[in-house]
Amino acid sequence: MSSTVGKVIKCRAAVAWEAGKPLVIEEVEVAPPQRGEVRLKILYNSLCRTDVYWWEAKVQNPLFPRILGHEAAGIVESIGEGVTDLKAGDHVLPVFTGECGECAHCKSNESNMCELLRINTDRGVMLNDGKTRFSKNGQPIYHFLGTSTFSEYTVVHAGCVAKINPAAPLDKVCVLSCGFCTGFGATINVAKPKPDSSVAVFGLGAVGLAAAEGARLLGVSRIIGVDLNPNRFEEAKKFGVTDFVNPKDHNKPVQQVIAEMTNGGVDRAVECTGNIQASIAAFECVHDGWGVAVLVGVPKKDAEFRTNPMNFLAGRTLKGTFYGNYKPRTDLPSIVEKCMNKELEVEKFITHSIPFSEINKAFEYMIKGEGIRCLICMEE
Amino acid sequence: MSSTVGKVIKCRAAVAWEAGKPLVIEEVEVAPPQRGEVRLKILYNSLCRTDVYWWEAKVQNPLFPRILGHEAAGIVESIGEGVTDLKAGDHVLPVFTGECGECAHCKSNESNMCELLRINTDRGVMLNDGKTRFSKNGQPIYHFLGTSTFSEYTVVHAGCVAKINPAAPLDKVCVLSCGFCTGFGATINVAKPKPDSSVAVFGLGAVGLAAAEGARLLGVSRIIGVDLNPNRFEEAKKFGVTDFVNPKDHNKPVQQVIAEMTNGGVDRAVECTGNIQASIAAFECVHDGWGVAVLVGVPKKDAEFRTNPMNFLAGRTLKGTFYGNYKPRTDLPSIVEKCMNKELEVEKFITHSIPFSEINKAFEYMIKGEGIRCLICMEE
Repeated sequence: MSSTVGKVIKCRAAVAWEAGKPLVIEEVEVAPPQRGEVRLKILYNSLCRTDVYWWEAKVQNPLFPRILGHEAAGIVESIGEGVTDLKAGDHVLPVFTGECGECAHCKSNESNMCELLRINTDRGVMLNDGKTRFSKNGQPIYHFLGTSTFSEYTVVHAGCVAKINPAAPLDKVCVLSCGFCTGFGATINVAKPKPDSSVAVFGLGAVGLAAAEGARLLGVSRIIGVDLNPNRFEEAKKFGVTDFVNPKDHNKPVQQVIAEMTNGGVDRAVECTGNIQASIAAFECVHDGWGVAVLVGVPKKDAEFRTNPMNFLAGRTLKGTFYGNYKPRTDLPSIVEKCMNKELEVEKFITHSIPFSEINKAFEYMIKGEGIRCLICMEE
Repeated sequence: MSSTVGKVIKCRAAVAWEAGKPLVIEEVEVAPPQRGEVRLKILYNSLCRTDVYWWEAKVQNPLFPRILGHEAAGIVESIGEGVTDLKAGDHVLPVFTGECGECAHCKSNESNMCELLRINTDRGVMLNDGKTRFSKNGQPIYHFLGTSTFSEYTVVHAGCVAKINPAAPLDKVCVLSCGFCTGFGATINVAKPKPDSSVAVFGLGAVGLAAAEGARLLGVSRIIGVDLNPNRFEEAKKFGVTDFVNPKDHNKPVQQVIAEMTNGGVDRAVECTGNIQASIAAFECVHDGWGVAVLVGVPKKDAEFRTNPMNFLAGRTLKGTFYGNYKPRTDLPSIVEKCMNKELEVEKFITHSIPFSEINKAFEYMIKGEGIRCLICMEE
């Protein structure tokens, strides 16, 4: 048993003290896990846009100081009371949404939106006692998405932890805990395109490229990438994207451009930007009779989806998905296996690597739109 | 061979001379079928709201004089050039939408929206020559939905004719050619509820009751009927409806009423009114995580479907369907068989019966909301 069990751990964490200000590496105190919780040693993070969005805090209520981070991999340091399916030393992926195993959603094979552990962007405390496990000089530091992985140690609900093969390369599979699964699952589990069909992907960041990768692996012959940034296309080719549409290049709606390219519309569309106009375009660019559009990107709070209802009556389907319809604890172990046997090449998503001390660089890359994922090595 | 083959037939037809004015039984001339067409002797009609809607012509461009009627059954009198799969004497159901067998939709097992023979409410002529087959004293009389079954004889495209078992009771199976299949298929083929689940049906006319009947036969335990007319509930019980919600009885949105009745929402909803607020409510009343709403009712041209996109991202699906996703020529024969072996009790839908000469009574029943389907016996 580790000598840290049951004790407060002092370690480095990147603290966001204020909206939009560089994170500061601080020594923080991490309390032991309580009932139903586990404390993890985080080894790798990769930066996701959602971290940046909540760090910028332009729209939503700001909650600071906070430890961000949710796309990561690590090892269980110790477990709280009542945790039976995890033990110290287990290799794990923490996930921003959980699986309590008991609620109607967990018991349904059609939903992954656990009633208890569903994503909550506003909550900055642990469920068990409504308090934080992080503090500095007695000042509480808020959690983020129940994960707060920008810390050498973090405390998470055991239902938000997927136990994986200990031989898996944590510096690669960390991207599974958010971006990759979100996009890949949207295609594989929800859009389900047929081989030799056509798919449009809106937004060519990590999530969109993972959606394209899913289509490529299913044998889709035409993958149309839509993005406002023309630099994305070259990289996107590696993920199967065959055609590129930049809405800025056209003086007609992008749904019309795509319908004209595809004899009436694509078979499937996956929307990964969260922009409401892109969401509407993604729906309206699918073929009548059989087209299916899948919304992945999270829109602004006051956004409204508007379309002519005849677009539905003509045989189109619109679905939303959350975390690619994967149940994190149930499904992640087998996806990790697919990475290990090279069925999935998640390393393609990692274009940059930096030590933890330089974490603000990862934010700069993301804001500039440079690369796909930046790996943050916690031990460097 | 019938003595009428190749000749003009003079027969009785109910002509709509003007919007909203009683139909007039006239002697009309029915030209022989041209290439790819068949001429049918119609034995039974049942009146569908769509006939009334286009007769009232309150919104759309009026096209008169016209012979309405599209939910019917009859016998092939003669065939045009090139028709190989039908012959004189075949018992058939004419359908307002067709199946050419050649287009991308007909070749897809995901669509029934035939490119060539898809419903067209504005066209009043035959595709082959852009002319009518009906006339009176040389004045052309327009077709309706390619069927115009309010005539003892009519000419239709062979692709809009389903050949059925000659032993089938035409005075019952006539309801399959529109209303029954539209609602029943929406549940069976599209919403696909599980046994012991919950379904909300918006609109308890023939289409909605057929949707409820589908749910009942699938073993759905809770079927919530939504209608503004409280008189509908008693009849609806015969079709499995267990709960009734009249939006007029509540001072909150009906989607909220249903969510509160069902611990968060129904598993499936089928919208059969075409009212845009009902369409939005049907979508918003399904449970997050797994709920599926199906739009069947046709909205007004300028209607706009509006919802918060988070309703999709929380795992809800919205689909539209047309004719219950049935391919008319492929699928109707087996549904007729199910009526014959009593798996389906379509006779429950026929609440009134009148001779052809009294056809305007059927319109009165429909406008008053009296009964479900009124059978119109062409030979009486």
